Amino acid sequence: VPIGGTLDREALAALLAAGIEPARGMQLRVACAETGRVVIAAPLAGNRNDKGTAFAGSLYSVAALAGWALLTRRCRTEALDAEVVLQSSQARYLAPARADFSAVAREPGRAELAKLRRMLARSGRGRVTIAVEVRCADAAVMSFTGAYAVIARSVA
Amino acid sequence: VPIGGTLDREALAALLAAGIEPARGMQLRVACAETGRVVIAAPLAGNRNDKGTAFAGSLYSVAALAGWALLTRRCRTEALDAEVVLQSSQARYLAPARADFSAVAREPGRAELAKLRRMLARSGRGRVTIAVEVRCADAAVMSFTGAYAVIARSVA
Repeated sequence: VPIGGTLDREALAALLAAGIEPARGMQLRVACAETGRVVIAAPLAGNRNDKGTAFAGSLYSVAALAGWALLTRRCRTEALDAEVVLQSSQARYLAPARADFSAVAREPGRAELAKLRRMLARSGRGRVTIAVEVRCADAAVMSFTGAYAVIARSVA
Repeated sequence: VPIGGTLDREALAALLAAGIEPARGMQLRVACAETGRVVIAAPLAGNRNDKGTAFAGSLYSVAALAGWALLTRRCRTEALDAEVVLQSSQARYLAPARADFSAVAREPGRAELAKLRRMLARSGRGRVTIAVEVRCADAAVMSFTGAYAVIARSVA
């Protein structure tokens, strides 16, 4: 994918398929990549735990990848060749997921993006927090907050 | 596995294999289940991300399952028929994992266990925090803290 281009649903799906080995086993797919958000979905089947609901690690994985995909797209849009790395996270499980589920990552606000750009311009590294909600059958089942590092590849 | 028995390495491995569908794709195995700790290991191959290091969601999954397995064994030891459910977590990624990795979950202290028993006796529900460290090639690559609910099955 050329730097400075944009990443649509198909391009993000190709990045996941090529780069994230466990994505296939979990049957992850990019459900939506419209402006302002990225949605990554997974089926319940194949992701169940001992209670027959979605495994905590699968819910977490779709959330972490939705945030990663959103920021990877943001870098591409801004013509920035950078690595996006999850540094820390907080997760809260709100209800069991008894059906297919999807993680909705939302773009950070303008002030956060402006701060990220300043950090990158100054040192080639920045840090930004992304909020992700995992939903199942119209209910929120998990809330995730991830702090991601964005590292320009020239200094990586 | 009978209630009131104990869960050794093979029994925990059987629980994982039978109950946690994504465990097979991630090739998780119970590496150690000696008194006081449970260790769940995974190979780097099959768990890689776009950077060729271990995927954040795989590191998280081994950690969450190590805590779950430790508490599930604890319930069995105490002859308590209970469900163990992850409620919330905090994770910090300390370094990239460039080789096979394993999550080490440690038993909570006596005071925490005593508190858990009191909550269970009073209401059939308790809550306990488990600290897990994920290690790779003698270095810590992730620290995980999970708050787990323990719910006696008679009130589940």
